[in-house]
Amino acid sequence: MSPDRLSTTFAALADPTRRAILARLALGEAPVTALAQPFAMSLPAVSKHLKVLERAGLIARGRDAQWRPCRLHAEPLKDAAEWLEHYRGFWEDSFDRLEDHLRGLQRTRKRRGRKQR
Amino acid sequence: MSPDRLSTTFAALADPTRRAILARLALGEAPVTALAQPFAMSLPAVSKHLKVLERAGLIARGRDAQWRPCRLHAEPLKDAAEWLEHYRGFWEDSFDRLEDHLRGLQRTRKRRGRKQR
Repeated sequence: MSPDRLSTTFAALADPTRRAILARLALGEAPVTALAQPFAMSLPAVSKHLKVLERAGLIARGRDAQWRPCRLHAEPLKDAAEWLEHYRGFWEDSFDRLEDHLRGLQRTRKRRGRKQR
Repeated sequence: MSPDRLSTTFAALADPTRRAILARLALGEAPVTALAQPFAMSLPAVSKHLKVLERAGLIARGRDAQWRPCRLHAEPLKDAAEWLEHYRGFWEDSFDRLEDHLRGLQRTRKRRGRKQR
């Protein structure tokens, strides 16, 4: 996968409306009108978001000119998830350190509690 | 986590140079000059990318005015990975379907091969 493809995927995900559209499509295919409904947004505004998602290969649209339903196309998300996976060790490490720190604080408090009794 | 935080993370990742900087920092902290070296890029251009990463909370910079080293800060990536995780079923499904399809093609070829013998 070229770096540009991954950039296009991440850029498409960098918007709450587009992520909400993908979440809706995870429930099943839908026409543009149904996708526009939950957002206080015009059809052209929603269409713009759909174009970004389509260019990123995250949705596919039916050919029926009247009812072009949108379908989720999740493959590009796989590469994004794989890229992120390389960093799992780092965020798990820092959460471990936070946990150790909080346990340390708890022990200090217990010791202080005993002294005050 | 607010949707905007997630958007900021994805937007920061939507650039090959910024992802390469994060990959470099995964090996250990580094000063800006060392980060600029592998890219045919001016220091101000690299600094711009670092600012995007810093605003997204993906890097932290040391306080030493002379040698402000950059450090990877992976926590925001955890939320991005969790968001993507919801869609794992979809990309695995479609790869399963592709595998089934390829197996079907293989079987057809074998059958044809036998007929031709």
